[in-house]
Amino acid sequence: MTHSKVLRPGHVSIRVLEMDDSITHYRDRLGLLEAGTDKQGRVYFKGWDEHDRFSVVLREADSPGLDYMGFKVLDAAALAEYEGRLQAWGCKTERVPAGELDGCGERVRFEIPTGHTIELYADKEYTGNGLGNLNPDAFRDDLKGMAVNRYDHCLLYGDDIPGVHKLFTEALDFDLTEKIVDGDNLISVFLSCSNKAHDIAFVHYPEKNKFHHASFLLMTWEEVLHAADLMSKYDIAIDIGPTRHGITRGRTIYFFDPSGNRNEVFCGDYTWYPDRPPITWSADNIGKAIFYHDRKLNERFLSVVT
Amino acid sequence: MTHSKVLRPGHVSIRVLEMDDSITHYRDRLGLLEAGTDKQGRVYFKGWDEHDRFSVVLREADSPGLDYMGFKVLDAAALAEYEGRLQAWGCKTERVPAGELDGCGERVRFEIPTGHTIELYADKEYTGNGLGNLNPDAFRDDLKGMAVNRYDHCLLYGDDIPGVHKLFTEALDFDLTEKIVDGDNLISVFLSCSNKAHDIAFVHYPEKNKFHHASFLLMTWEEVLHAADLMSKYDIAIDIGPTRHGITRGRTIYFFDPSGNRNEVFCGDYTWYPDRPPITWSADNIGKAIFYHDRKLNERFLSVVT
Amino acid sequence: MTHSKVLRPGHVSIRVLEMDDSITHYRDRLGLLEAGTDKQGRVYFKGWDEHDRFSVVLREADSPGLDYMGFKVLDAAALAEYEGRLQAWGCKTERVPAGELDGCGERVRFEIPTGHTIELYADKEYTGNGLGNLNPDAFRDDLKGMAVNRYDHCLLYGDDIPGVHKLFTEALDFDLTEKIVDGDNLISVFLSCSNKAHDIAFVHYPEKNKFHHASFLLMTWEEVLHAADLMSKYDIAIDIGPTRHGITRGRTIYFFDPSGNRNEVFCGDYTWYPDRPPITWSADNIGKAIFYHDRKLNERFLSVVT
Amino acid sequence: MTHSKVLRPGHVSIRVLEMDDSITHYRDRLGLLEAGTDKQGRVYFKGWDEHDRFSVVLREADSPGLDYMGFKVLDAAALAEYEGRLQAWGCKTERVPAGELDGCGERVRFEIPTGHTIELYADKEYTGNGLGNLNPDAFRDDLKGMAVNRYDHCLLYGDDIPGVHKLFTEALDFDLTEKIVDGDNLISVFLSCSNKAHDIAFVHYPEKNKFHHASFLLMTWEEVLHAADLMSKYDIAIDIGPTRHGITRGRTIYFFDPSGNRNEVFCGDYTWYPDRPPITWSADNIGKAIFYHDRKLNERFLSVVT
Repeated sequence: MTHSKVLRPGHVSIRVLEMDDSITHYRDRLGLLEAGTDKQGRVYFKGWDEHDRFSVVLREADSPGLDYMGFKVLDAAALAEYEGRLQAWGCKTERVPAGELDGCGERVRFEIPTGHTIELYADKEYTGNGLGNLNPDAFRDDLKGMAVNRYDHCLLYGDDIPGVHKLFTEALDFDLTEKIVDGDNLISVFLSCSNKAHDIAFVHYPEKNKFHHASFLLMTWEEVLHAADLMSKYDIAIDIGPTRHGITRGRTIYFFDPSGNRNEVFCGDYTWYPDRPPITWSADNIGKAIFYHDRKLNERFLSVVT
Repeated sequence: MTHSKVLRPGHVSIRVLEMDDSITHYRDRLGLLEAGTDKQGRVYFKGWDEHDRFSVVLREADSPGLDYMGFKVLDAAALAEYEGRLQAWGCKTERVPAGELDGCGERVRFEIPTGHTIELYADKEYTGNGLGNLNPDAFRDDLKGMAVNRYDHCLLYGDDIPGVHKLFTEALDFDLTEKIVDGDNLISVFLSCSNKAHDIAFVHYPEKNKFHHASFLLMTWEEVLHAADLMSKYDIAIDIGPTRHGITRGRTIYFFDPSGNRNEVFCGDYTWYPDRPPITWSADNIGKAIFYHDRKLNERFLSVVT
Repeated sequence: MTHSKVLRPGHVSIRVLEMDDSITHYRDRLGLLEAGTDKQGRVYFKGWDEHDRFSVVLREADSPGLDYMGFKVLDAAALAEYEGRLQAWGCKTERVPAGELDGCGERVRFEIPTGHTIELYADKEYTGNGLGNLNPDAFRDDLKGMAVNRYDHCLLYGDDIPGVHKLFTEALDFDLTEKIVDGDNLISVFLSCSNKAHDIAFVHYPEKNKFHHASFLLMTWEEVLHAADLMSKYDIAIDIGPTRHGITRGRTIYFFDPSGNRNEVFCGDYTWYPDRPPITWSADNIGKAIFYHDRKLNERFLSVVT
Repeated sequence: MTHSKVLRPGHVSIRVLEMDDSITHYRDRLGLLEAGTDKQGRVYFKGWDEHDRFSVVLREADSPGLDYMGFKVLDAAALAEYEGRLQAWGCKTERVPAGELDGCGERVRFEIPTGHTIELYADKEYTGNGLGNLNPDAFRDDLKGMAVNRYDHCLLYGDDIPGVHKLFTEALDFDLTEKIVDGDNLISVFLSCSNKAHDIAFVHYPEKNKFHHASFLLMTWEEVLHAADLMSKYDIAIDIGPTRHGITRGRTIYFFDPSGNRNEVFCGDYTWYPDRPPITWSADNIGKAIFYHDRKLNERFLSVVT
């Protein structure tokens, strides 16, 4: 049982092949709010109910995929503490200067055993959720498309699941909430630094540093349907859904951005508390674990990554 | 524009291979209410919000499939009128005596161009929906499983779609609400005798008298999810869903009874009025027509029938 | 048991005190689509899923209230038939020429025993629901506010409930679906010409020709919540709700337009068939009949009319 | 910005006038699961998705109200730490021996400035949520009534709001998430030890130690409707709702147990993070703060407490 000073997934930087189509996808279809373009041409977004300046960064590149995922920590002391613990754990860390991302303070960057780049930071410009903090309304009615609430988590594919399990739980105080095991082999781990059922998750894959999906929060199953309807109208490739996960119980739909990066919109996981035991899924139940209704995996889910 | 004195699909008789498992399926999973067993061993059911004595009849047989589908008409005069019009149209009709189905009046039975057996009847014992007709509550809280509201419609597969289109619209005053066409070929028709988007539907298939599914009404998309969840828990084979239809806009899930007969539970079509033109789907949009999200048919939907 | 050739409530003409505020209310808050302004300055609207040119007409006047409610009938023959039957029943009828309302054919106008003006018509310009009738999408995503689906029905207050009950059932083939009685006194009737639980309703009131509300259809209970949220944000006076009716089981919220006319948005009544008995509510259950949750009437519901 | 080792509200002990009716209410209507009766005759319950042995304790007494509310902390070290900090803050604390409540470890009990009794504890028997922790299903289908997910929080009335604000934030590391102010007067505080928008809340009232309500979690707005429907069917007194709160955005209904204790069932607040500023409501917006739709308080909400 741990007690993390990591607050939440605070940003994700995604590589896209062509920026204009990508802006249309993330802004008009997912309904993220644009939050500026920096000198490098990276475009920033946030979900409507996020308070910090941005949570999604798109960077034009020759191949799609994940640049890095950043977690916000409680304060500068926590940042220094985790930096030290990561180094003690055997991670090489690097400080990315404040301002390298517009409005973001200094980041501690490190590579995890699956080859992905993760960052921690303590400061980001506060811009609010647009409702104000004095007598706010309960909702916004100027949103587009799926009107996602926030960037929520990522699922990453890589070759050392025991390694990332150890790193996140030992050096960063995450809890293991759910895992898939095949005998003694750890196939997948779901990890939380909060009361959410997952803030980051990993599935075994023979290659390092693969990106399965970035996930965005919806509030209701009706909104999952509306998201699916929009995908049909705007000809967005659906991977699977609407359906439910066994793991986390989330109600979900997977689809692809124009560059082939997988997105998820979902609602409804349970409240995690660190005093309960993690859930174990055995490999013979992996279908039900991932897609609770179909009870079998589709090939795409296992093999299409960026 | 027509104006039918046919009220609704009033019953469907389905062949099942083994009665006990079938009762568990239709009573405990779909949540139909048992409404008796007759001298032949046929078992009767109804949805909780249906007022007549039964709407589903299960008959044990060596092969699954549809025996017949019965429509209730306004009154005895309407029954006689349609009997005459069917004969004038060229249908051979037969009177099945009152009481052959427990609590059901005399039925006019006929075969339609696709080889299916259809019946009309004007009388069935009134047993009410269990809420009473004096100061009723708005719901029942003693229901099981999916708690389907009512038997709603069937989709039948057969070889003469133009023939059934003509019969239902010319002899029985149904409206064509939606159709799928491949050039000049009529592939599918959706037909209504009410304000529903469909009371019966047909899809072209090389053989006569095939049963695609019987459909049962739910009230919300949340109930469609709950139905899907139950299918997983009780290991019921899902065909596809939860998803939406382009045709009728219904939100739906397809699955199979223990004998291999396909069932649907769905909610949410639009209100049909006979003064609006039918909707046409072209064959190149058949995927979107049937499964609005996936935008392609699965092989099972086209080929698995009983 | 009757079988009406009246299709549906096709339009309502509402008097408003000031047109600009009213347009904002009906267009931007309810989400009706504007459908033109006529030479008299009347402004026309329709719900997004209605196929005829308009269903709501606003007329600027010195006092709020109802001008008239119009029902569309099956065809010209039905119009003539009902005109004759109304006259035989003792109603004076009048023909309003085609084009008096833009795009509407000739109307047969008459006064009912409660003093309200009702019209029948067979023709109105077809403009479609904006999705087209060839491979249509299942929804629109360019709607405002509550995005009401259609104008659905009115509830009218007046002094002769037995009179309107007789007129609608005997001369126009409506069904009585629900009623409130106080001993031998008929306090309220709900009447249907379709498979809806009500197309028009009446409650006893000592004065003639009073307007209680015009009602608009939503599709889900989530949409009822969103409507309520919008009322708070845009400071629209709520009468009561979100709640449920015992009568019709509808899930509902009542509120007021800027002129004091009451509106309802609601979803979810049951499917009416004319072979079932009407529901009776006794006066001692009137609270539960009208507001199923509170189980008592609020004073406004009984006394505030226009 | 704080970082609490208090996990959650873990139990509430409520005084009821008559045990049998109370069991019917909490078990059959709210749908809590019975979790035993102790030697003193106290009856224990838990929500279906809670993992520890109990969360609600009913004690028969001459007057209704709150005995105490207990919070689970991370571990024994946290228990000792908070005990020391409470004492340093000026609170007298008392150790209640393990086993005084069946299955509960030692509790640190103290009185807060509003006169309420609060407890901390680190251990309670783990009994699980009935789904198991190996390949669990996503739901239970053997639940009754409202089928509440868990005991969630309490709202307490008392005379020293600044005092409890200071105590919970300074000695127990809670965050202030929302507050109501009248000029310089603090009228109400909402406090969180987690990612929930509130784990406990206080409203000013001239007397000490008053109980406003205990709240239970539902998952959807549909479930709030179903709860309201059940209240009507089983004649449970409703205070207000279904409606939404401005504070926390929760969708809610308030009602009374047979002893006059107020209950709430609700769903859907936002995710709290300690790096965002609290929300302030000014006294002139208190109506909207509490009841977002009605925008005014009802007298009962302010004055009826136990």
